[in-house]
Amino acid sequence: MSARLPALWKRLSSTISPRPAPPKAHHHAPIREAAFPNGYVLTGLHCGIKKTGALDLAVILSTTPKPASAAACFTRNAFKAAPVVVSEEVLQRSASTARALVVNSGCANAVTGKQGMEDAWAMVRATDALLGHSAKESETLVMSTGVIGQTLPICKVLAGIESQSSDSQTKSLGSDFTAWERAAKAFMTTDTFPKLRARTFSIDGREYKMAGMDKGAGMIHPDMGPPRMAGQLHATLLGCIMTDAAVSPRSLQSALTYAVDRSFNSISVDGDMSTNDTIVVLANGSAASDPAAEIDEERDPRTYQIFRDELTTFAADLAQLVVRDGEGATKFVTVSVNGAATYEDAHRIASRISTSALVKTALYGQDANWGRILAATGSVPLSVPIDPTRVSVSFIPTDGSPALPLLVNGEPETVDEARAKEIISVEDLEIEVQLGIGSENAKYWTCDFSYEYVRINGDYRS
Amino acid sequence: MSARLPALWKRLSSTISPRPAPPKAHHHAPIREAAFPNGYVLTGLHCGIKKTGALDLAVILSTTPKPASAAACFTRNAFKAAPVVVSEEVLQRSASTARALVVNSGCANAVTGKQGMEDAWAMVRATDALLGHSAKESETLVMSTGVIGQTLPICKVLAGIESQSSDSQTKSLGSDFTAWERAAKAFMTTDTFPKLRARTFSIDGREYKMAGMDKGAGMIHPDMGPPRMAGQLHATLLGCIMTDAAVSPRSLQSALTYAVDRSFNSISVDGDMSTNDTIVVLANGSAASDPAAEIDEERDPRTYQIFRDELTTFAADLAQLVVRDGEGATKFVTVSVNGAATYEDAHRIASRISTSALVKTALYGQDANWGRILAATGSVPLSVPIDPTRVSVSFIPTDGSPALPLLVNGEPETVDEARAKEIISVEDLEIEVQLGIGSENAKYWTCDFSYEYVRINGDYRS
Repeated sequence: MSARLPALWKRLSSTISPRPAPPKAHHHAPIREAAFPNGYVLTGLHCGIKKTGALDLAVILSTTPKPASAAACFTRNAFKAAPVVVSEEVLQRSASTARALVVNSGCANAVTGKQGMEDAWAMVRATDALLGHSAKESETLVMSTGVIGQTLPICKVLAGIESQSSDSQTKSLGSDFTAWERAAKAFMTTDTFPKLRARTFSIDGREYKMAGMDKGAGMIHPDMGPPRMAGQLHATLLGCIMTDAAVSPRSLQSALTYAVDRSFNSISVDGDMSTNDTIVVLANGSAASDPAAEIDEERDPRTYQIFRDELTTFAADLAQLVVRDGEGATKFVTVSVNGAATYEDAHRIASRISTSALVKTALYGQDANWGRILAATGSVPLSVPIDPTRVSVSFIPTDGSPALPLLVNGEPETVDEARAKEIISVEDLEIEVQLGIGSENAKYWTCDFSYEYVRINGDYRS
Repeated sequence: MSARLPALWKRLSSTISPRPAPPKAHHHAPIREAAFPNGYVLTGLHCGIKKTGALDLAVILSTTPKPASAAACFTRNAFKAAPVVVSEEVLQRSASTARALVVNSGCANAVTGKQGMEDAWAMVRATDALLGHSAKESETLVMSTGVIGQTLPICKVLAGIESQSSDSQTKSLGSDFTAWERAAKAFMTTDTFPKLRARTFSIDGREYKMAGMDKGAGMIHPDMGPPRMAGQLHATLLGCIMTDAAVSPRSLQSALTYAVDRSFNSISVDGDMSTNDTIVVLANGSAASDPAAEIDEERDPRTYQIFRDELTTFAADLAQLVVRDGEGATKFVTVSVNGAATYEDAHRIASRISTSALVKTALYGQDANWGRILAATGSVPLSVPIDPTRVSVSFIPTDGSPALPLLVNGEPETVDEARAKEIISVEDLEIEVQLGIGSENAKYWTCDFSYEYVRINGDYRS
């Protein structure tokens, strides 16, 4: 039982002791060669942005004769970084195709004015040159992550890219696990492990592969939309997904937009959106030389939907890695809001619970504090207002044991606090809020708020 | 200069050491007797809710023959606590008049179902009985703050109220500083000092007085509206303001709604809204027996506006005390957003900056991190979109020394980091964001995010 009156006494006494964030490196492990999609070579290298000597530049090339279909979702922040603006323009000029992606970490190239734009274009042109084509338009997308407001050491970056030209002796582009891993490592900033996943899936007996990597641990609360969308922009989360499926550019964008809403736009570490958030997907079609096999929403909605759902679950996997590596995180929490009138209502409540400082500190303190969950739930304006007498809140253990109801139809349950403590003391937890209004559901993934978070961000100049 | 690549090294090394929140008791001091409004008696006592023996029940009575004009703003949270529902109903039935206010701390009487409603009405009736009238309708407003989901020990509460009846030997109602101070102390939960202020103001040579108290240190991000307003509700911040001015009920509500938007609805400690937030104002007219002196917006807009502005600055004083006592706070920060197209746009950005975990941890770490301020600014959807090339960000020192520009018209300044550190290392700071779009301005008050905040909320069951 919690004390009826914690009050000032709690405020002045030390009842929880700081504990370090648990090690997270076990979320990274070797992946067998055969799981990676065909037709991509890549590398990660140290070009000199990071003073520590760590990898800070990734180059990813599609080697198929035709350019790959390309789609992207970009931050909706009003202060879009130069690489975001440049990538949007490349996609527009190329009719949503691309052959390459270049990524640097350690410097976000954000709020860097005209110089920043020139630097981002220079990275694109240098990578175009690796392709050995003489295309009229640029075929490279660019992403940056790191400190805001500082310009890139562009000569070092360009030298790094040029070290991968076909006649260079320092060329390290490859397609084995090590090459993919090096690229993933070059994405990292405050991440504690590289985030790399691959999977095989089949549609009508044909086998496809998909691999992807992402980065991010703080300033994570993305809200990304397709290129040139009306409205405002935000976000630093970077990610890319490469597949050997053949997908029409329009359908690839439509699938990615759907997938991003249900993955990267449904995670929060600290509720702060960055100026650089970008997710790119390339589909080079190397698994199928048959043009009829191109996945297209209008031509064959059924196969499109299978692909879209594969992309969505894969994107959710990648997105969840970011939450697991959330700065200072000791918990991985799934927030499920069910029974809403609309998906947007459910998503809005799930987002509010996932960003509540009081909910997140209670999770860190392993306190089954449903009052804070309820207060957060009730604070969101909705299309159909909440009826408090229909709302239920439960903890769902991840070990398959029965759910623990905390509030049922607006009435508090007599909670077995020992059982609640047991459920909340493990790393993974699901909070379920049932609104009892409609049939729409949304999921969100978040972590707790710890001493470590405050320490990490008390003086990291992001 | 910040390192170009803080990265993993920062994440693993300890660079800021926890420091305790500074003492805050100096924000409370004796107030001279003459500053308090006439015609009110009040007290604070221990009725038995708080196990520590601290004061937990306040009773405030207006002693004028006619009931006082009464106005209130209540939380917009969907899960309104019983005292909120009851006070709304009292105000509606009484045509916005009241003679008393009863407040308990230690238990929020929220999410307590039918029992909670009965308990809140019982508190109203018991306080009505102290008034010695036989009014048909209730004349008491009620507020509660503390733990959510637990019912009141109602017998103890009622005994406490009854101890103030005219024939009781334990009656402690009074009108001196000690009486006001005891009432303010009975409001407290995690507050470290009682929040009590009084002031004298004059309109056309006639002198009026105003005194008020409030409480709150966590779950502070109020969004309160007038009673029976359409839409959703939120809130725990409690406050009351008593004046001896005569104001018509309708004008009192209009002035309070305006004042609350620019005071209590413009503060944030942790971005979390409570189920109980309530601000009440009583105007008993004891300063003027002349009925013509009643302040009314339609009859005399000029005097109404003077009163409204006095109420607004007084409410802002009270609201700022809550931020100064914010859980774990080591900084008091004014966020000014100027040059917006609308007040709502400016207010929305100021609110976003004030709740950003990254901005607030940077303030704790005393890091002049304008990148995080900009990312937060850019993440807000507005009626008129931001033009990044017109945005400027500055630190305004509170000692009157020159402002320090960090970003001018979208271009980063070469910042004198020593000077920035100097400005940010003192307790009070103003962040100014100039949008350069229009002429509307908004102010918000916030505090930093510290180790102490995490510790306090890691196991406080609110």
